[in-house]
Amino acid sequence: MALKVGVIGVGMIGKEHIRRLAHKLTGASVVALSDVNAKAAEAVAATLPGAKVYASGEELIADSNVDAVLVTSWGPTHAAYVLAAVKAGKPVFCEKPLATTAADCLAIVEAEIASGKHLVQVGFQRRYDTGYRALKKVIDDGVIGAPLMIHCAHRNPTVPESYVSDMAIVDTFIHEIDALRWLIGDDYVSAQVLKPRNTKHTHSKLGDPIIVLLATKSGVRIDGEVFVNCQYGYDIQCEVVGEDGIARLPEPEAVQLRRDAKLSTAVMQDWKLRFIDSYDVEIQDWIDAAKADKVNGPNAWDGYFAAVTADACLEAMHEGTVAPIVTAPRPAFYA
Amino acid sequence: MALKVGVIGVGMIGKEHIRRLAHKLTGASVVALSDVNAKAAEAVAATLPGAKVYASGEELIADSNVDAVLVTSWGPTHAAYVLAAVKAGKPVFCEKPLATTAADCLAIVEAEIASGKHLVQVGFQRRYDTGYRALKKVIDDGVIGAPLMIHCAHRNPTVPESYVSDMAIVDTFIHEIDALRWLIGDDYVSAQVLKPRNTKHTHSKLGDPIIVLLATKSGVRIDGEVFVNCQYGYDIQCEVVGEDGIARLPEPEAVQLRRDAKLSTAVMQDWKLRFIDSYDVEIQDWIDAAKADKVNGPNAWDGYFAAVTADACLEAMHEGTVAPIVTAPRPAFYA
Amino acid sequence: MALKVGVIGVGMIGKEHIRRLAHKLTGASVVALSDVNAKAAEAVAATLPGAKVYASGEELIADSNVDAVLVTSWGPTHAAYVLAAVKAGKPVFCEKPLATTAADCLAIVEAEIASGKHLVQVGFQRRYDTGYRALKKVIDDGVIGAPLMIHCAHRNPTVPESYVSDMAIVDTFIHEIDALRWLIGDDYVSAQVLKPRNTKHTHSKLGDPIIVLLATKSGVRIDGEVFVNCQYGYDIQCEVVGEDGIARLPEPEAVQLRRDAKLSTAVMQDWKLRFIDSYDVEIQDWIDAAKADKVNGPNAWDGYFAAVTADACLEAMHEGTVAPIVTAPRPAFYA
Amino acid sequence: MALKVGVIGVGMIGKEHIRRLAHKLTGASVVALSDVNAKAAEAVAATLPGAKVYASGEELIADSNVDAVLVTSWGPTHAAYVLAAVKAGKPVFCEKPLATTAADCLAIVEAEIASGKHLVQVGFQRRYDTGYRALKKVIDDGVIGAPLMIHCAHRNPTVPESYVSDMAIVDTFIHEIDALRWLIGDDYVSAQVLKPRNTKHTHSKLGDPIIVLLATKSGVRIDGEVFVNCQYGYDIQCEVVGEDGIARLPEPEAVQLRRDAKLSTAVMQDWKLRFIDSYDVEIQDWIDAAKADKVNGPNAWDGYFAAVTADACLEAMHEGTVAPIVTAPRPAFYA
Repeated sequence: MALKVGVIGVGMIGKEHIRRLAHKLTGASVVALSDVNAKAAEAVAATLPGAKVYASGEELIADSNVDAVLVTSWGPTHAAYVLAAVKAGKPVFCEKPLATTAADCLAIVEAEIASGKHLVQVGFQRRYDTGYRALKKVIDDGVIGAPLMIHCAHRNPTVPESYVSDMAIVDTFIHEIDALRWLIGDDYVSAQVLKPRNTKHTHSKLGDPIIVLLATKSGVRIDGEVFVNCQYGYDIQCEVVGEDGIARLPEPEAVQLRRDAKLSTAVMQDWKLRFIDSYDVEIQDWIDAAKADKVNGPNAWDGYFAAVTADACLEAMHEGTVAPIVTAPRPAFYA
Repeated sequence: MALKVGVIGVGMIGKEHIRRLAHKLTGASVVALSDVNAKAAEAVAATLPGAKVYASGEELIADSNVDAVLVTSWGPTHAAYVLAAVKAGKPVFCEKPLATTAADCLAIVEAEIASGKHLVQVGFQRRYDTGYRALKKVIDDGVIGAPLMIHCAHRNPTVPESYVSDMAIVDTFIHEIDALRWLIGDDYVSAQVLKPRNTKHTHSKLGDPIIVLLATKSGVRIDGEVFVNCQYGYDIQCEVVGEDGIARLPEPEAVQLRRDAKLSTAVMQDWKLRFIDSYDVEIQDWIDAAKADKVNGPNAWDGYFAAVTADACLEAMHEGTVAPIVTAPRPAFYA
Repeated sequence: MALKVGVIGVGMIGKEHIRRLAHKLTGASVVALSDVNAKAAEAVAATLPGAKVYASGEELIADSNVDAVLVTSWGPTHAAYVLAAVKAGKPVFCEKPLATTAADCLAIVEAEIASGKHLVQVGFQRRYDTGYRALKKVIDDGVIGAPLMIHCAHRNPTVPESYVSDMAIVDTFIHEIDALRWLIGDDYVSAQVLKPRNTKHTHSKLGDPIIVLLATKSGVRIDGEVFVNCQYGYDIQCEVVGEDGIARLPEPEAVQLRRDAKLSTAVMQDWKLRFIDSYDVEIQDWIDAAKADKVNGPNAWDGYFAAVTADACLEAMHEGTVAPIVTAPRPAFYA
Repeated sequence: MALKVGVIGVGMIGKEHIRRLAHKLTGASVVALSDVNAKAAEAVAATLPGAKVYASGEELIADSNVDAVLVTSWGPTHAAYVLAAVKAGKPVFCEKPLATTAADCLAIVEAEIASGKHLVQVGFQRRYDTGYRALKKVIDDGVIGAPLMIHCAHRNPTVPESYVSDMAIVDTFIHEIDALRWLIGDDYVSAQVLKPRNTKHTHSKLGDPIIVLLATKSGVRIDGEVFVNCQYGYDIQCEVVGEDGIARLPEPEAVQLRRDAKLSTAVMQDWKLRFIDSYDVEIQDWIDAAKADKVNGPNAWDGYFAAVTADACLEAMHEGTVAPIVTAPRPAFYA
């Protein structure tokens, strides 16, 4: 029986997920749509036999024909929709961020606990990337011993003028925040941000690059470069240094060329391509898990932890201090 | 509307494709099964709601409920089933080989031409591998100029005693035969086989390794190592030397390790994993193409060309000569 | 005319340099030896036709037959010998450290300025390593644009019990301190040290690993991992991130192996081998420069700057603070 | 005591070796020079204190002040000078070829045997290259088991119009002929040459590329690509496939760059740089061996074997046949 999914928000990422659900993945159908721009929702509905358009996300969630909800609307609206879905007892996949404040994330956590069911998944898709999974397996298998340090980098070729300093944390490094915590199964306790001088390729509202330093409960130290005007490509690097060896995230598969006095492989330019396969795996896993009343991926607690960590990184960046990362106690529900 | 597929042969590869069609890919359903072992077919049918078992492949093909046929039975039975499907005007996907003789392949070619429709696809899955496609794109884009030489290798860690010398050509190198011809868009004109001394890891009925030399119509020279007891892994190498540069098949993505005095990446051991993703892409493409009355993948002519080439390689290997590769003229139908 | 060299200190490194001067390099001869252990000096002299043994380094320096002095004695004795050589107006090569305190280094700087001649070279051999030189050329040629960050690592497989925490700075990271400053032509302004939890492979007197953070005058940020019980090998990594690209120190040349399910290259185990060629280049350059009344390599100012930086790193490590790096003003003599 | 060397031929390579002997290496001095162009010899002598110019190579060889002879004159003159040196009982280093015919090489072999002393070394410098030595060590240590195949390539970016087809064998592949035989300790028994279609970058007198196939006594099969207008660089590749694994010649050390959408390392353009260090090692070894009345490097028999093999390759190339490689029986003198 197909999972009947209602999608709230039919922007770029919404359309991508709708295409996935309707044409690429198995076990789901898109039966309901909603968007602040009703015409946009109508236009998408016209391409989906049997899909109904709702005036609001709340109405969509309330309809008993909708089994599960996918939230891809504007960030500030996420919390309300997720809470509504939780209160309706329906599985909900929410693109990052779970909410724009840690307090709202915590409210969702509490609502989910109150509901007694695991319902919420957050869209941190790196956990579904083949390379990250292979890296995690190496660590979990004990191949490099206990992790001590992580060196990583998140690089984009360029960003538009609308991308300002805080986005280096909340839009970019947020992916490392979730992925690294998952990778080594550890929680963060403090953050610090180093500011190298700016590249000439940045603009006045963006400090670029930065280096984020995180410390974990068990004493692992992380240094994460964020460099969003690196010019040469979209490049995600991650090296985990353990007691017995070092493991590094695979470079994406690429044809090796000998040409023009160089031995080279191409570096990706477009972030959308780097993790494209992981979105398929992520949403398929969500469909399958939702049918089994489970959540396998990043959950509400992970979304909350990421929000608290991002806040600390911002504080560290603005104040030049080492900011503590303090969360509510981890509920047994998420043990 | 789902493509209703009948599957002839429910052995290992048959079961894999059934799982794909039924659970992983979109746009198809398995409605019919047949196998020389009727009980095996019944057992599989029990897991597929609505799938019917037929006493013979011919009956399955004849049923009007079957839109398209997938042949994964024993090699010597392929030709008859493919011919029957062609005569019934139904799309048919046939695992390699298309037929066990070049004459039978040619009969299929002629039947397909007579039918006036493109119906036959042969299971050479490398054309759907991400790495080979990236390599072909580099060549087609002119990045390395016109191809002059190809150096390649097909290595297995070990083979069982049942694997004998001819299989190095018809089961192993046959993949290179099809893939390289497609890669450079050229036809072969002669074959020669070099026999290094045998590895101590082979057995008395298997000359291992060998080097197959092919020449193409345009003068490209290919040297292909086949080494099926190489011990260290399943390793497919392909390097195309062009007038302006050299392109090499990507190494499969792997975690880089620094450990035990080595900087290393793992080499795959299992051939089934190396090309596993390509099977999904291949069968999905077949489904989509069948619905559009097309064949995108390797067709009957490709299957015939591979058979003629394999025969020449065997002759060259047995006789120690340079064997010409002579086919019927290429019909306009396959231009 | 050969440069007549007197060597003070005939321990392991002294013997190595004597072998170089006498048998491998050109343009120099070893004419004088001195060691606290007179018998050791006599034993070496017995293998060097014409070499004379002196009761003290001072006497050796004073002998007019000695053109130039090479100091490879115990660290705490360096300053006095270097000062004596400078006062005698003779070129002197001193293995690191130039002196064990910044104050003593500064006294040497002042004496050299007073002498009016460039006489002192410090034994930071990485500046003579092929790989580092290639990396510097790439940077100097503007290939990666202005440097913004350096990520580096200095890893040893193991260290003995006698190696304690401070040595991670003064014996190990001291090489990065000199090499990175030279690499990007910039001076340091502050240091911070992060302490990940200890590896289980260390002992109670050694905090291992650590991460040293340096900031430079122009705003470059450096993170340097020091991990001296990394188990897997002696591994020196250095990646310079610039405005237009990233350059990485070459991996040492190594045979690539496909074996035992791995694609691998060997990682060096012995630090003495990693930079062995650079010692030849370094000492040959010193000989040639000494004859031309020049110093091409790291000079007294560089030795002083390294000492001040190491002190700041130690303070940062002990106090957990960001320690400023403040030197005397750079004299025009070293512009 | 320095080895007093006389150099016959002061062209480009002669001057290089003179510089090495006089300024870079130890234990030798250049005392005698000769060249068909007497003025050229005088000009070089003017830069070498104490060097005397002789009217002919024979006079140079005859002078009792000359301990050893280095022949870097025009190829066709080599045999006579080497023979004269052998007859004079003096160590002689002869740049390749030892002689321009196999018969002349054999005459040298016989003269050397008659002299009762090992005197002749041929200038195949690859045996002194760090990479080749590391590769040989891996093979000799049994890391990859018994060799079965070698895949190799010798590529130049371009060649001038004066470079014609036969030179691909006698000037270019000749290096592989000697190096591979030494690498695996085996002798050749037959040669075949494949001719891919020509690159558009060649000219009418040069078939480029070619593939040389060699078989050895023990059954090893070698395929060697020679491509002297490959455009992209000077690139020497060598992969030895053994029963238990595969070893590949190291890529030359190079800075890794991430820039312009590529992850790359530079490929060398100039053959003179690729093996430059090996010349130093080679000539130093020759000096040291000559003083000890030994020959460590490629000897007269190796020079003869290379000549016979090159002749067979030419025959195979001209006639399109598999040419046998038949030498005189190996004398016990060279066991």
